[in-house]
Amino acid sequence: MNKIKKERIILGIDPGTTITGYGIIRISGRDPELITIGAIDISKYDDHFLKIKHIFERTLGIIEEYHPDELAIEAPFYGKNVQSMLKLGRAQGAAIAAALSRSVPVFEYAPRKIKMSITGRGSASKEQVASMLMQILKFKDMGVKLDATDGLAAALCHFYQTNNPLGEKKSGSWNDFIKKNPRRVKKQ
Amino acid sequence: MNKIKKERIILGIDPGTTITGYGIIRISGRDPELITIGAIDISKYDDHFLKIKHIFERTLGIIEEYHPDELAIEAPFYGKNVQSMLKLGRAQGAAIAAALSRSVPVFEYAPRKIKMSITGRGSASKEQVASMLMQILKFKDMGVKLDATDGLAAALCHFYQTNNPLGEKKSGSWNDFIKKNPRRVKKQ
Repeated sequence: MNKIKKERIILGIDPGTTITGYGIIRISGRDPELITIGAIDISKYDDHFLKIKHIFERTLGIIEEYHPDELAIEAPFYGKNVQSMLKLGRAQGAAIAAALSRSVPVFEYAPRKIKMSITGRGSASKEQVASMLMQILKFKDMGVKLDATDGLAAALCHFYQTNNPLGEKKSGSWNDFIKKNPRRVKKQ
Repeated sequence: MNKIKKERIILGIDPGTTITGYGIIRISGRDPELITIGAIDISKYDDHFLKIKHIFERTLGIIEEYHPDELAIEAPFYGKNVQSMLKLGRAQGAAIAAALSRSVPVFEYAPRKIKMSITGRGSASKEQVASMLMQILKFKDMGVKLDATDGLAAALCHFYQTNNPLGEKKSGSWNDFIKKNPRRVKKQ
């Protein structure tokens, strides 16, 4: 009755109005592997709608190239102001629509949840998250700006949340985290 | 050297998380004509992403049916809170992406601008806007909820802004408005 588990590909994307970061992981065995990490620079487009068009088209392109099974995004619960949240929402809406138009289901995670899931600390810095990503996914040079790592972080968070439902329980202590996730604790 | 002006079709859409209202006008002569007004009820979908998918697909469907030349949307500059603005932005992003994926250019207007453009008063109520829409576009029964009129209002505003650049100048008095726009003043 053993069912052969299909390879699973997760795309994480963090649409921003200057840089849209994305990362793709593949899960075929127990551990996730990095397929790619990249950043779409949309700061060169002055026009807000050109940015949205570019995010939509590039997301579609990534989906058609890598055929992800799921899309994970970050869902902030606060922002500088309502106007910047509307613009961020539109950018996200374009990426989400691209995924849904190709029947790729979408999952969202709060920033704290993502940081907690990867580093064990909801208040971790971008640098700490990036450092853990490099350790877990065994790569050295991000090759992209720090801003671009949020997409990959969302993808990995989604893997942990769906692969290990225990991780969803309200946190125990830091020691519990270490015990449960020995490979996810950064060696100093 | 007279150029025959092509018929122009404007779609206005107001994506909301319960009702998405839309309206389409055609300009072939001097005056805009109503082609259709409608509302997409998405309150029945519990899932936020299903709502976004539905908005994207229905917007694409409307575009493929009516072939609009332009899309106009309302761009609020404030909202209840950042979280609701993010959700509104995502809904708008899906509609915008649908239009841009079919090469339909998108234009946005602030709510005050839309109300001012249609009623001559930036602080007009929804009822006043709806009443002016019915008078200008010569129809009696909206057949849709008041919530659905914002899409049509955005379409008509876009027509006025692009057809009559004088209207973009900072307002003169109410009397100037009446003089310039005799047909847009509601008869009591």
